[in-house]
Amino acid sequence: MVVGIDIGGTNTAIGLIDQKGNVLVETTLKTANYPKIEAFVVAITKSINDLHTPHKEVAIKAIGIGAPNGNFYSGTIEQAPNLPWKGIVHLRELFLEYFDAPVFITNDANAAALGEMHYGAAKGLKNFMVVTLGTGVGSGFVVNGKLMYGHDGFAGELGHFTVEQGGRPCNCGRRGCLETYASATGIVTTALEQLSRVRLPSGLRSIPKNQLSAKFVCQAAEQGDALSLEMVDYTAEKLGFALANIVLITSPEAIVFFGGVANAGDLLLKPTKEYMEQNLLNIFKNKVQLWQSQVPENHAALLGAAALAWENIE
Amino acid sequence: MVVGIDIGGTNTAIGLIDQKGNVLVETTLKTANYPKIEAFVVAITKSINDLHTPHKEVAIKAIGIGAPNGNFYSGTIEQAPNLPWKGIVHLRELFLEYFDAPVFITNDANAAALGEMHYGAAKGLKNFMVVTLGTGVGSGFVVNGKLMYGHDGFAGELGHFTVEQGGRPCNCGRRGCLETYASATGIVTTALEQLSRVRLPSGLRSIPKNQLSAKFVCQAAEQGDALSLEMVDYTAEKLGFALANIVLITSPEAIVFFGGVANAGDLLLKPTKEYMEQNLLNIFKNKVQLWQSQVPENHAALLGAAALAWENIE
Repeated sequence: MVVGIDIGGTNTAIGLIDQKGNVLVETTLKTANYPKIEAFVVAITKSINDLHTPHKEVAIKAIGIGAPNGNFYSGTIEQAPNLPWKGIVHLRELFLEYFDAPVFITNDANAAALGEMHYGAAKGLKNFMVVTLGTGVGSGFVVNGKLMYGHDGFAGELGHFTVEQGGRPCNCGRRGCLETYASATGIVTTALEQLSRVRLPSGLRSIPKNQLSAKFVCQAAEQGDALSLEMVDYTAEKLGFALANIVLITSPEAIVFFGGVANAGDLLLKPTKEYMEQNLLNIFKNKVQLWQSQVPENHAALLGAAALAWENIE
Repeated sequence: MVVGIDIGGTNTAIGLIDQKGNVLVETTLKTANYPKIEAFVVAITKSINDLHTPHKEVAIKAIGIGAPNGNFYSGTIEQAPNLPWKGIVHLRELFLEYFDAPVFITNDANAAALGEMHYGAAKGLKNFMVVTLGTGVGSGFVVNGKLMYGHDGFAGELGHFTVEQGGRPCNCGRRGCLETYASATGIVTTALEQLSRVRLPSGLRSIPKNQLSAKFVCQAAEQGDALSLEMVDYTAEKLGFALANIVLITSPEAIVFFGGVANAGDLLLKPTKEYMEQNLLNIFKNKVQLWQSQVPENHAALLGAAALAWENIE
């Protein structure tokens, strides 16, 4: 079996996972409780040993870690805005002080792509992409059956693809990035814009502005709220435009959507597919599948991290 | 040795090439003389046998073909606008009737990428892209050391990347494609637009409009013609914007420029790099090299086709 670790801004999940994707045991830590990375690694090490003790007869073959800004080549986490450790964290090195097993790190979107390939919607596919729609927008690309890390391990930054020149300001310092429209945060921006710009009635108007969320927008749209449907449509338009321009570069067989906003399902994916098809070059039309993630949601990130470990020791 | 075949709208070049990239013998046919594909294949077969006769002691290991819209997976040429054969041409199948050796086909930009990897600027690189700037704009991507064909063999259509929403109409039926700005044809469109929009003097005004070419624009710019420099700058702006948005997906180590317009060299590549850097996400800044092709120009397409053959029998 392998260890899967999913490092998030709030929680870090740790599990022991077999090759079929069964999570044998698991536990979580509060990431913010460990402002020092060394203490964090010690705590994870202890958790792994505790989890492993009742299963000592099976060796741990590898450790796979999914983390924001995790870099496969350098084994580091670099400048992750939502984690307590600043600068460049040499995570792989730190882990190797405690374990004999090989340690692999990548970012959460790449881990999600491997999770879909091993245990989810993309089983058996050689060319596909995963789009993570959450607080931010991320992506992982599988090309010729292998994750595309690019030259320096940072490939797949779909969230910063320009969908509107001179558009919304992004945290990255640029403008018009897909993330500023299609993330949960982007959808809230769209909602606030449209609620103040348009006078149409909307169920959203009863929600205090500082409590608006992408989830509320999608729920209202599901119930037929016309203005909320507009907001979802606008999100789909930006997403579909970006996808059409990426499809003509990488030619994926399918695009798998993962994360909180992707839970909107067909409500978002159907118009996204329509906008994508409208913008697609002829030779790609009606060829690319859009799917929701099929990795069990409660274990998706852990399974992605585990898939990274299996992938690299096979 | 292998056979390299470069099928173009005007000429088809055929050569015998060793593994080091030496073109031992070569010949050309006029493509338009063969409105029937069967006659074309027969003529090529005869040419190959003629070339091979004095070298009979060395076997032909494979045949590599670069052609517009050539598809690696299906072995076909599909809907190539500048070739005499319409619809889908089953080129590999036809060749296999005459040869025992394996036959590989891909489009010219992919062949160019393999040519750079085996014999040119990208030797030893595992992640890079080639951009072909000629009558149209094409691209070939190498990812993890292998050509990225995508699911259906059509990956790498950078020429149809949208650089201007609602921009210039493209032959593909869409608008604002990079090709309508950065190809030789696109540069002429830019020149005509600017000559009629602006009253500045320019050496280009002495050239009859129907004789304007990208080459004239670049030559005038080289000589300091201010308006021509503007035109080159505008081309670089569109190209740099597209590249910045592709770099964040594929994270290449280098971008190699190939084809007639790329011969403008630093005149075009320097401002293109500046615009690319301006638009790049921080983590990619100052990391991506822009190079001119280093495959000998007179044999570039043949060597690309030969590299395709070597690549697939190794």
